[in-house]
Amino acid sequence: MKILSAAPALRLGFVGGGAASGIGPTHWHASRFDGNFSLVAGAFSADAQRNRAAAEAYGLAPERVYDSFEQMALTESGRADGIEAVSVMLPNNQHAAATRAFLAQGIDVICEKPLATSLDEALDLETFHAAHPCVLVLTHNYSGFPMVREARDQIAAGAIGELRVIQVEHAVSSGVAAPGRNATSGWRGDPAIVGSSAVLADIGVHAHHLMRFITGLEVRQVAAELATLSPGRVSDDNAHVMLRMDRNVRGLLWASFVAAGIRQGLQIRVFGSTGSLAWHQEDPDRLLIQPQHAAHYVLRRGESWTGAAAQAGTRLKAGQLEGQIEAFANIYSDAAELIRARRTGRSPAASARLCPTLSDGVAGLRFIDGCVRSQATHGAWVEL
Amino acid sequence: MKILSAAPALRLGFVGGGAASGIGPTHWHASRFDGNFSLVAGAFSADAQRNRAAAEAYGLAPERVYDSFEQMALTESGRADGIEAVSVMLPNNQHAAATRAFLAQGIDVICEKPLATSLDEALDLETFHAAHPCVLVLTHNYSGFPMVREARDQIAAGAIGELRVIQVEHAVSSGVAAPGRNATSGWRGDPAIVGSSAVLADIGVHAHHLMRFITGLEVRQVAAELATLSPGRVSDDNAHVMLRMDRNVRGLLWASFVAAGIRQGLQIRVFGSTGSLAWHQEDPDRLLIQPQHAAHYVLRRGESWTGAAAQAGTRLKAGQLEGQIEAFANIYSDAAELIRARRTGRSPAASARLCPTLSDGVAGLRFIDGCVRSQATHGAWVEL
Amino acid sequence: MKILSAAPALRLGFVGGGAASGIGPTHWHASRFDGNFSLVAGAFSADAQRNRAAAEAYGLAPERVYDSFEQMALTESGRADGIEAVSVMLPNNQHAAATRAFLAQGIDVICEKPLATSLDEALDLETFHAAHPCVLVLTHNYSGFPMVREARDQIAAGAIGELRVIQVEHAVSSGVAAPGRNATSGWRGDPAIVGSSAVLADIGVHAHHLMRFITGLEVRQVAAELATLSPGRVSDDNAHVMLRMDRNVRGLLWASFVAAGIRQGLQIRVFGSTGSLAWHQEDPDRLLIQPQHAAHYVLRRGESWTGAAAQAGTRLKAGQLEGQIEAFANIYSDAAELIRARRTGRSPAASARLCPTLSDGVAGLRFIDGCVRSQATHGAWVEL
Amino acid sequence: MKILSAAPALRLGFVGGGAASGIGPTHWHASRFDGNFSLVAGAFSADAQRNRAAAEAYGLAPERVYDSFEQMALTESGRADGIEAVSVMLPNNQHAAATRAFLAQGIDVICEKPLATSLDEALDLETFHAAHPCVLVLTHNYSGFPMVREARDQIAAGAIGELRVIQVEHAVSSGVAAPGRNATSGWRGDPAIVGSSAVLADIGVHAHHLMRFITGLEVRQVAAELATLSPGRVSDDNAHVMLRMDRNVRGLLWASFVAAGIRQGLQIRVFGSTGSLAWHQEDPDRLLIQPQHAAHYVLRRGESWTGAAAQAGTRLKAGQLEGQIEAFANIYSDAAELIRARRTGRSPAASARLCPTLSDGVAGLRFIDGCVRSQATHGAWVEL
Repeated sequence: MKILSAAPALRLGFVGGGAASGIGPTHWHASRFDGNFSLVAGAFSADAQRNRAAAEAYGLAPERVYDSFEQMALTESGRADGIEAVSVMLPNNQHAAATRAFLAQGIDVICEKPLATSLDEALDLETFHAAHPCVLVLTHNYSGFPMVREARDQIAAGAIGELRVIQVEHAVSSGVAAPGRNATSGWRGDPAIVGSSAVLADIGVHAHHLMRFITGLEVRQVAAELATLSPGRVSDDNAHVMLRMDRNVRGLLWASFVAAGIRQGLQIRVFGSTGSLAWHQEDPDRLLIQPQHAAHYVLRRGESWTGAAAQAGTRLKAGQLEGQIEAFANIYSDAAELIRARRTGRSPAASARLCPTLSDGVAGLRFIDGCVRSQATHGAWVEL
Repeated sequence: MKILSAAPALRLGFVGGGAASGIGPTHWHASRFDGNFSLVAGAFSADAQRNRAAAEAYGLAPERVYDSFEQMALTESGRADGIEAVSVMLPNNQHAAATRAFLAQGIDVICEKPLATSLDEALDLETFHAAHPCVLVLTHNYSGFPMVREARDQIAAGAIGELRVIQVEHAVSSGVAAPGRNATSGWRGDPAIVGSSAVLADIGVHAHHLMRFITGLEVRQVAAELATLSPGRVSDDNAHVMLRMDRNVRGLLWASFVAAGIRQGLQIRVFGSTGSLAWHQEDPDRLLIQPQHAAHYVLRRGESWTGAAAQAGTRLKAGQLEGQIEAFANIYSDAAELIRARRTGRSPAASARLCPTLSDGVAGLRFIDGCVRSQATHGAWVEL
Repeated sequence: MKILSAAPALRLGFVGGGAASGIGPTHWHASRFDGNFSLVAGAFSADAQRNRAAAEAYGLAPERVYDSFEQMALTESGRADGIEAVSVMLPNNQHAAATRAFLAQGIDVICEKPLATSLDEALDLETFHAAHPCVLVLTHNYSGFPMVREARDQIAAGAIGELRVIQVEHAVSSGVAAPGRNATSGWRGDPAIVGSSAVLADIGVHAHHLMRFITGLEVRQVAAELATLSPGRVSDDNAHVMLRMDRNVRGLLWASFVAAGIRQGLQIRVFGSTGSLAWHQEDPDRLLIQPQHAAHYVLRRGESWTGAAAQAGTRLKAGQLEGQIEAFANIYSDAAELIRARRTGRSPAASARLCPTLSDGVAGLRFIDGCVRSQATHGAWVEL
Repeated sequence: MKILSAAPALRLGFVGGGAASGIGPTHWHASRFDGNFSLVAGAFSADAQRNRAAAEAYGLAPERVYDSFEQMALTESGRADGIEAVSVMLPNNQHAAATRAFLAQGIDVICEKPLATSLDEALDLETFHAAHPCVLVLTHNYSGFPMVREARDQIAAGAIGELRVIQVEHAVSSGVAAPGRNATSGWRGDPAIVGSSAVLADIGVHAHHLMRFITGLEVRQVAAELATLSPGRVSDDNAHVMLRMDRNVRGLLWASFVAAGIRQGLQIRVFGSTGSLAWHQEDPDRLLIQPQHAAHYVLRRGESWTGAAAQAGTRLKAGQLEGQIEAFANIYSDAAELIRARRTGRSPAASARLCPTLSDGVAGLRFIDGCVRSQATHGAWVEL
């Protein structure tokens, strides 16, 4: 079980993530959940009124509210009580720039996915980071679920044998039009902001990361079809991708904005030589293991027979559900451990090293890049 | 959707609920979840070392840590920045005494269930409270789940017609002995501490409250069997109760410590003249409605077609799970609203009035009392 | 896996069970499913037109269709190619009489439950049967499900340890009134035909038998409430029964006609000292085992790791569902084995001895009798 | 509800399908289930002993058992009481030849899928059939499930709006090697017998047919990867196919022999502009409908609010499960109706026209052919 942090809370800033957004309160809840972070500064919006409203909702002192992330990075880094870390929740095309601004000031960064809007931009950021080696956590938050971590441990321990096939999907209905209207999706559907594939940038990278996280395998080749299925939409809203992975493993990945009726349909099934496993984000406390030659069984968060990684991310006994915010809080806990370790020059705890970072972000953009190249060449297989 | 509290956090104390207990961290998470409370004082344990350890884990100032709740009530009420509310998490036989101590000082109380260890003690407390009318919230936390509140609204709106039968149970396995050992259960199994029925005092009252909360009906007669099924156990560990309720409704209630394999098996099914509904604590975001003459359907937390009460208690969109802590946080939010309303002399918001209070605690003890009397008279029906 | 019968089909008659009834076609399908019986004669209805229609639908020769079961028993027993067995599907109050008529002629009987309408009538039939020891199978058909048989084997093998508590229910909605109408239920609600408790006679005995079948325990004491909850109904429609069983096991049994929205809600959960199991009739191919100290697992019909009894009753591989008719066919297969064994003077196969017979019918009536006596004495515990 | 057939049973022969095979008894049960067919002749095996054993198990007269299907077709067509229909259950490469032999004699054919082993062979058979227009039913048996037919009706009625995306899979574990052994799969893995893709010929065509049946859409383009993932295997065992269908609908199809732990994982999800639906073969009595803007609901076989097609294929009330054999029996019922209609020169009932026939078989081979061509061209999109 998780022990409350004895260390003082780290001082945190928000860039984007106002109180009226969906994402801001989630980060707020998650960051403070276990007492690891305390929000003290922010540049929530270019709109002055929204910026002020967010500051009030979060209870910030007026002098810690900024008009821009550039100003915030400079001013906070000059304060004795300045922020130690920042959470970046801007539209995708500002992720890299904001991240650089804080890294440049020695402030650790927790950045929303995707890391960037193109592979080149991601690789540039990787180079920049090498010169400014602060912590850079990427919020592939679903990897914070204890039973996702258990899935990883089970596969590593051979519970389903040698891997053969992966079926992974992240299907949502955010792109389904309301009755009598065309689909609109704000900046998330604007190629100028999200890059060459809206659906992969927004949710496809979650599926991609989940698969890599659980199996430890990299995607080597893809054949993809990116389609726009909703009338009136400018960016893609459905991606089908065939995968060739390390060790001759095959996979299918589906990412969609048009899965009407589905809210957060992220799920993965992995098939090995002696069994399979399945995890679904909408029932996150359970991991189903399906041996070929024995009864199927269910591992539940909070039981003593789950592994160390799952237990490190759990607070309640089995039977008392933990949800999305708790999983997200695990990412923040890992981030806190990485930040404290860096700042004190020690090695971080093993469990915190599961946390998604810059290299996962680069892999995500490499994946998008491959899919877009495949799409451009009549669906042919391309190397990543 | 829930809006973050704009009001400053209320100053909170803990009585019991150390960081090494199961219950302390849950209250800690729940109380601060939405920014409504801030833990600033505590009397966690009679054991000085544990007391200190808890204070450190929660990050309290040393001068706000007390050896006893009596001392805490007196000292805190004398401080300008003294606690405004206290959470009582002591063994059952100290609930009433601790509650009185704080009520007497004008400090609002959030008390763990059961309210007392006997009906007489509960009625005395009711009298005392009439003279010291602070807020007294009882943590029947399961009523904080949005879909429990939705169930209440659905029934009130006639979704299943006139009520006929209720099946409710709270079955756990905390009393199942480890291999090769007899069952032990610490103070929760000690009649001197929990009163005349351990299993009803600990979990039966949750089932009882859930049923009353959802249906709005009171239990009028019971016929009960309280049994001790685990070898070596001194208190009861299994209760079967037949119920006669208002409006000729019948019910069965099962409360058990010996439901091996089950962790937190609280569930309710209500059958009416035109349909039925079902809710299970281990899958809390869903409410199943089963019409007699149409397709069965599932209501989910976070959808726009749920009612106002459910929406007031929800933070995330459907598909992103909320769990036990979020539900508990709803009770704390309600408590905060009741406390702020009392302290400013205004009427509390309607949603907060769903919160379980002293009268629910008295009803719980009345129910236990009836079951014990039935048991003493060969299972005959007794009036409550 | 089940092997098709190599033996010639037994000649079968129907008493009741016309083609327009629900029950007739089910028996017809089940009896011929594995090639064990061939329907050749019948007395389907006192109504001549219905009788003829049934005969035509089933393709019977006109000379094998009778006006009454008495005539049928006499005539068929005199034919060289007369029926070897009969299925009795009359209203409850004719079960015993029809059974006697065929037993008296040396014709084996497969009788619908309940065996009789009172304990006295059942005991008289038991005496009569001792003098006319043909096969008398009682169609507690749910015990034909392979995973019910597996549950029995699992408990016998100690999979959940020493038994503690049973929760069993058979809840249906046949007594729920259509909109704007009072509940009516034909002869199934007529005390003159069904005996002292309509709801126990019709479905309560299924729950009672299922529990005894799976656990091997007898009910020794009951405290019951039989209620009439639907307006305008004359017989009871809801039964709550507290149970004391062999070996200090406790139980609750719920039987109801007013479970709106539920179609065939027969389910059982058994809790032991080291785990529990659960089976639900609407998902019959699965048996859930819930150990206290290990992961929960699911046993499925058709897998090689199920026991001999389950495998003897299965035809298809796991993953290809078998349903109600296949389970019922297992009862008919058992009956065929008992009949062939009796007729050839050999011992029947072990698996066929699981089949419910007269003694189960007597136990069922004893149970009803006890519940009615408890009801008559203010719900007090009574001995069976 | 289904009415028992009043017509005399049609005389049926089996080619292949011995009693020791998995498939023979299933066809036997299904063909006789509703009284539509009676098995009277067979050529079960080239092995004389197996042939005899099957004949005995099925209770055939010795003179109706043949050494070859050619001999059987000739002899039976010359008998006054000769078979009216034949069920072909041979290895794939004999399907077309056996079908021709019986069509040539005016005997109606019920053939196992796939229709042939190549598109050319299928097209030749189509030509031959035009000259010998007997009934030719193809046993895509899953389309016999009532809730599959309901899904078709729901989509046609607009329950989920305009179609956008289909996810369909048929994943089994028949190709998963036993511990310590390489995968072997008998003739089902032999390209000489099954054609160019073992996995598509065996199960991929089921997924393909199910999708077409439910949506009424044809596949127009595919991009496929056929892989051999089990060590030591000669044919493919996993197929990933991206689909472009009529009306701009996109899809993914997965067919696999290496889905360890999965027994008969045939499932389909269809996403439209206003909702989605899901059906899973291992839970066949339910159809889940997921509107975008209202509560999700479950349609169950046997309820009065299901459509005519579903009701025509149902025998039992909701809550009493029907399984695989009942679904297969619906295909045989349809076949009987088509045969009787042809033989009497009348139009068959509408419901029977849902039955899969030759044109579905041709479409299946066209699909396989396209996938194999895509595979041969580096996964590029190919026209069907």
